[in-house]
Amino acid sequence: MSAGPLPIVRTVAELRAVVSSWRRMGQTVALIPTMGYLHDGHLALVRRGRELADRTVATVFVNPTQFGPTEDLARYPRDEAGDAAKLAGAGCDVLFAPSSAEMYPPGFATSIAVAGVSQGLCGASRPLMFGGVALVVTKLLLQALPDIAVFGEKDYQQLQVIRRFVRDLDIPVRIESGRTEREPDGLALSSRNSYLTAAERAVAPSLNRELVQAAGLLADGSREAGPVLDLVRANLLAVGFASVDYVELRSADTLASLERVSGPARLLAAAWLGKTRLIDNCPVASES
Amino acid sequence: MSAGPLPIVRTVAELRAVVSSWRRMGQTVALIPTMGYLHDGHLALVRRGRELADRTVATVFVNPTQFGPTEDLARYPRDEAGDAAKLAGAGCDVLFAPSSAEMYPPGFATSIAVAGVSQGLCGASRPLMFGGVALVVTKLLLQALPDIAVFGEKDYQQLQVIRRFVRDLDIPVRIESGRTEREPDGLALSSRNSYLTAAERAVAPSLNRELVQAAGLLADGSREAGPVLDLVRANLLAVGFASVDYVELRSADTLASLERVSGPARLLAAAWLGKTRLIDNCPVASES
Repeated sequence: MSAGPLPIVRTVAELRAVVSSWRRMGQTVALIPTMGYLHDGHLALVRRGRELADRTVATVFVNPTQFGPTEDLARYPRDEAGDAAKLAGAGCDVLFAPSSAEMYPPGFATSIAVAGVSQGLCGASRPLMFGGVALVVTKLLLQALPDIAVFGEKDYQQLQVIRRFVRDLDIPVRIESGRTEREPDGLALSSRNSYLTAAERAVAPSLNRELVQAAGLLADGSREAGPVLDLVRANLLAVGFASVDYVELRSADTLASLERVSGPARLLAAAWLGKTRLIDNCPVASES
Repeated sequence: MSAGPLPIVRTVAELRAVVSSWRRMGQTVALIPTMGYLHDGHLALVRRGRELADRTVATVFVNPTQFGPTEDLARYPRDEAGDAAKLAGAGCDVLFAPSSAEMYPPGFATSIAVAGVSQGLCGASRPLMFGGVALVVTKLLLQALPDIAVFGEKDYQQLQVIRRFVRDLDIPVRIESGRTEREPDGLALSSRNSYLTAAERAVAPSLNRELVQAAGLLADGSREAGPVLDLVRANLLAVGFASVDYVELRSADTLASLERVSGPARLLAAAWLGKTRLIDNCPVASES
C-alpha cells in the first residue's frame, strides 16, 4: 500500500472545514498534537488514534508560549517535509501546521494556569511551560473539536496537566495516552535526543535503567523513597550526567509527593547531559 | 399563549443531553448566562437569543470565583422559582442551574487570565472578577456548545473580556450583545438595584444622566476628556453618591484609554450609593 502525499492545512478555517466534512459522514476524529521532528513515539500515537477513531489529524506547532526566554525555542529541531512523509506512512489523514501568527494574532491576551499538578517536577525549572501547554492544547482542541486526543506518557506530568484542565474547563474530548517508545537500549524516544553527542548518547540509557531499578526496589512499599532516589541521583552523576533537576516518587494521578509506595505511583526524573535536558518516567507497581 | 413550567437541569450531563436532542433535529441553540434574580434586561437577552436561534438555554449560577472575599457573594439576591417563571414567560426552553459542586468539584485547579481589556475600570477595584468571569463563561460555553451566546452591554467591560478570550481560545461560538434596558428615569436595570433604599433609588438615575450629558460634550472630539470626566465625578458626589470608582473614556473595542474621541468610544463609570456599587456605560458617537 503506497501512501499519497499528506494534505497540510495551515489555518483554523481550513482545519474546521476538513473536520466538518468528516463529521457530515458520521466519522469520528482523533487529534495528535506534536511539536514536530517526529519519531516512532509520535507515530505510535498516530496509530493509537487510528485504532480509536475513523480519522486522525496530527498537528505540528513549536509553541512559543511554552518555552522560557533562555530555552531552546530557536534551535528546536524542525523538518516539516520529513514529518509529513512519516505521518502519511503511518496512515494519518491530515497535518495541521499553523504559523505563530495564526495561533497568536496581534492583541492576543489570554492565559491559562493549572495549579497543583503543574507544580514541582518540570514545573519547578520550567515555570512557563505548563501554562503554555494548557493554552496551546486548549486552542488545538477547540479548533479541531476531536472526539479523542492522544498524548504520550513520555511527558507524564504534561499528560496529567492536560487531563486536569480538560476536566476543569469541560472541554468535550476524551484524553488517551500512549506508552513511551524506546530505543533497544531503553532510551526514551525524544526529538531532543538529536542534540546528543555520540558520547552523551552512550550514557543516556542510564536514565531509564536507574528509574526501572529504583521502581523495582520501591514497588512493594517496604522502603522509604528518599534514600533510593538519592542513589539514583548519585548514579546518574557518576555515569556522566552534568546535573539532575529532579528524581521523584509521585502519586500516578495527582502527582502528589509520596514517601513510599501505597497505591498507583510513578517515578519521574529530569537530568542534563551536556546542554541537553532529558526526561523520563516509569510506573511503579503497587503490591499493597 | 400560556407558558408551561420551565424544565430545569442541574448537571452538565443533563444539559448536554438536552442540547444533543436539539442538535439531532438540526436546531440551533443560543445560551444566555446569568447570575439570576432576573429582570427585564435579562429577559431582553432571552428574546434576542430567540430571534437568533431555534432554542434558548438560560443559565443561573452565582459564580463564586468572580467575587472577592469582601464582596457580596453571600447576600447576592436569589429567587430561582421567580427566575424560572420569568424565563418560561419569555419563551426560554430550559434553565441550567448547577450547584457550585457541579461547576467546581474537589481538585479543581484551572484558572484563566485576560490581560489588557480586563485591566483598569472594574478590574482595578475587583481584581478577581474577570478571571472568574472568563473561567465560568468558558465552562458554560463548553458545557452547552451553543451556536450563539448573548451578553448584556450593561456589563460592557465584561462583554469585551468575553469577546477577547472567546477569540483567543478559539471557542466555537458567536458572541452577541443586547442593549442595556433602563427604567423610565434612565437607571440601568440591575439585580443589585434591589439593594437601594428609596432615597438612594431617587439619586441613582444621575449616573446615566451624567454619562449621557458627557457623551454629548465629547462626541465631536473637540474637547479633551479630562475636565469633562472631572465634572461628572463632582456632580455624582454632589447629588449624593458616596464615592466614585471611575469615570473613563475608552476605545469601544480594545478599551484603551482615550484623551479625546477620534473613533468608536464608550464612557464607563462605577460609583457607590451607600453600600451599593452601581455601574453604567454609554456609547459616544464619533463624528470624525
